Amino acid sequence: MSQPSSYKVLVPADELHQFVESLFLKGGFAPAHAADAANVLMYASRRGVDTHGIRNVLPIYFRQLEAGQLNVAPNFHIEHETPVSARANGDSGLGLAAGCWGMRLAMQKARQSGIGMVSMHNSYHYGAAGYYPWLAVQEELIGISMTGRIYAGGAEYGVPPTFGAKAMFSTNPLSISFPTQNEPPYVFDMATSVVPFNRITMMRDAGQSIPPGWGVTADGSPSTDPGEVAQVLPLGGNREQGGHKGYGLATMVTVLCNLLSGGWAGLYDNDPQAFEGFKLPNDGHFFAAFRVDLFRPLAEFKEGMDAMIRALHASPKLSGHDRIYVAGEIEHETEIQRLHDGIPVTETVFDNFVELAERYDVALPW
Amino acid sequence: MSQPSSYKVLVPADELHQFVESLFLKGGFAPAHAADAANVLMYASRRGVDTHGIRNVLPIYFRQLEAGQLNVAPNFHIEHETPVSARANGDSGLGLAAGCWGMRLAMQKARQSGIGMVSMHNSYHYGAAGYYPWLAVQEELIGISMTGRIYAGGAEYGVPPTFGAKAMFSTNPLSISFPTQNEPPYVFDMATSVVPFNRITMMRDAGQSIPPGWGVTADGSPSTDPGEVAQVLPLGGNREQGGHKGYGLATMVTVLCNLLSGGWAGLYDNDPQAFEGFKLPNDGHFFAAFRVDLFRPLAEFKEGMDAMIRALHASPKLSGHDRIYVAGEIEHETEIQRLHDGIPVTETVFDNFVELAERYDVALPW
Repeated sequence: MSQPSSYKVLVPADELHQFVESLFLKGGFAPAHAADAANVLMYASRRGVDTHGIRNVLPIYFRQLEAGQLNVAPNFHIEHETPVSARANGDSGLGLAAGCWGMRLAMQKARQSGIGMVSMHNSYHYGAAGYYPWLAVQEELIGISMTGRIYAGGAEYGVPPTFGAKAMFSTNPLSISFPTQNEPPYVFDMATSVVPFNRITMMRDAGQSIPPGWGVTADGSPSTDPGEVAQVLPLGGNREQGGHKGYGLATMVTVLCNLLSGGWAGLYDNDPQAFEGFKLPNDGHFFAAFRVDLFRPLAEFKEGMDAMIRALHASPKLSGHDRIYVAGEIEHETEIQRLHDGIPVTETVFDNFVELAERYDVALPW
Repeated sequence: MSQPSSYKVLVPADELHQFVESLFLKGGFAPAHAADAANVLMYASRRGVDTHGIRNVLPIYFRQLEAGQLNVAPNFHIEHETPVSARANGDSGLGLAAGCWGMRLAMQKARQSGIGMVSMHNSYHYGAAGYYPWLAVQEELIGISMTGRIYAGGAEYGVPPTFGAKAMFSTNPLSISFPTQNEPPYVFDMATSVVPFNRITMMRDAGQSIPPGWGVTADGSPSTDPGEVAQVLPLGGNREQGGHKGYGLATMVTVLCNLLSGGWAGLYDNDPQAFEGFKLPNDGHFFAAFRVDLFRPLAEFKEGMDAMIRALHASPKLSGHDRIYVAGEIEHETEIQRLHDGIPVTETVFDNFVELAERYDVALPW
């Protein structure tokens, strides 16, 4: 997890949460959608996933809102469903709210049918992929979420396929959660690229250089200058180090999010340029939830998870390292610390919030 | 995919298939299990996945058989099931046959309920993970398979967690398939480590050195000597390059294969050493299959897959590269070539087969 290298103020989580929710309300979103948005963003900021938290309020969500890209009063709806599945439409709405709606639908089907899967198109940026499986694990369900975008004609920023010189995917993350007994819930959340793109933007803002192997310029040359890096490599990096696996995972995410939900509908017919007509420029999501007792009693499973985690903790360490972590553990400890100390707000985010507070007439939380 | 750098003979696929099946029959396996075993191994060898094909007949399957590890007459059975799921027991039998049985069960549930998921314990090495999703895609189902092993007390060979000095996982691969229209089926199959362990063994046998970044010695030191490398790093390599993601994927595979199927049963009770009692030393598997029409009409989806693949093919290439591949494509082309030319049999495999042919009284295929 990235911690901001410096920050301007520490703000109590409750007050920051209230501020963010009020901003979305004053921005014109329905109360339920504003509440969802604040929940998703504050989840990330409480847990140290700063790439996906409150830093994105202005540069992603309010910029899209003010540009008229977002439908502020969307009708999230089901286009096709079975007891175990749904294809859903985000109606060009706020991804943070569409995502919560989609995950809740998957969870409802899981409670009724054992498993529920939802593939949703026509949505926007849904924040931290981990939030949705974390919702499922609150009800002791196994949860899965992914969000994908494919640029049928290539894009300036994103992730190229192995041997490719142009971005074809977004960083297409995937996340899965497993319930535990006494250990923090296991919540694994990864971009299928080496790093998420926001990490590079944050390091650029902080005046830092990035490690070799993360990214390349628009023409495919390796670079450590975050201002110049346009493409993030797939997880694994180059072909020899397994980058084709990150590319394969990015493709899998896109198929489940963008293709199952309706991508390239009706465009085939031997047209070699069919890809230019790709009809899903927005984000697609995939959500799944299923019950542990489809396989074995929940209590036994949770005890097994704890035992596995203890075995990993107890395993021998490389010299220079005194802990082995499991997914969700650092975030859990960060959350405890930040609920005590407050959430760090960087200079850039501070300035963004001053600007938005004035524009939308919301009292600042400091 | 690895092509053998040299081989001793090229053998027609049909004759090699018959030879391998006869070996398993004479080894004492039931005819249906011998047929499954030959199907899985020849799938890999036809498609150039030489790490997981006929090279393993002696060093994995017959060595385990002759050591008395394998139950030659297993009763694969369901321990718990619902219309969408099953926990199954491989009865210490041949993983190649147990895997086929488990995947067929998942597919049968998918045909009846839309989706089927099977978590199976007490099995052995099941060959190439991709074979099972490939079975599903023959019936136009989306298929998933994973195989996992966790070493609760650490192991000499395998994959360490990030910051760990001892192997805790096997290379825990995962695979997924998607049906296509005119393009070869999309079959993605990856170890969650940088490379599968067999790749290192093959390069050792061929007298080659391995690239930096793949593995470390038993005490955690980086090495390019395949004779000395005991641990393969998780996909991504070190922490900075995203190795914690490969570690997270390995953990996910283990939970779905080893924990859902019953791992660490009844061993909790605040015993800090509970991990020593881990009761699933063998391989666990996870299989899933689901119908595309849970979400959208199959024909539309397949046309979309073809359009996506064409878009990836058409995207700009890095200099020095004239093609961009999608998963399963190189294997598909290799299969066409090898069905025409024959399957390459290396010196080591040739000698293994001469030995086995004599011991089990089976005619050599050359």
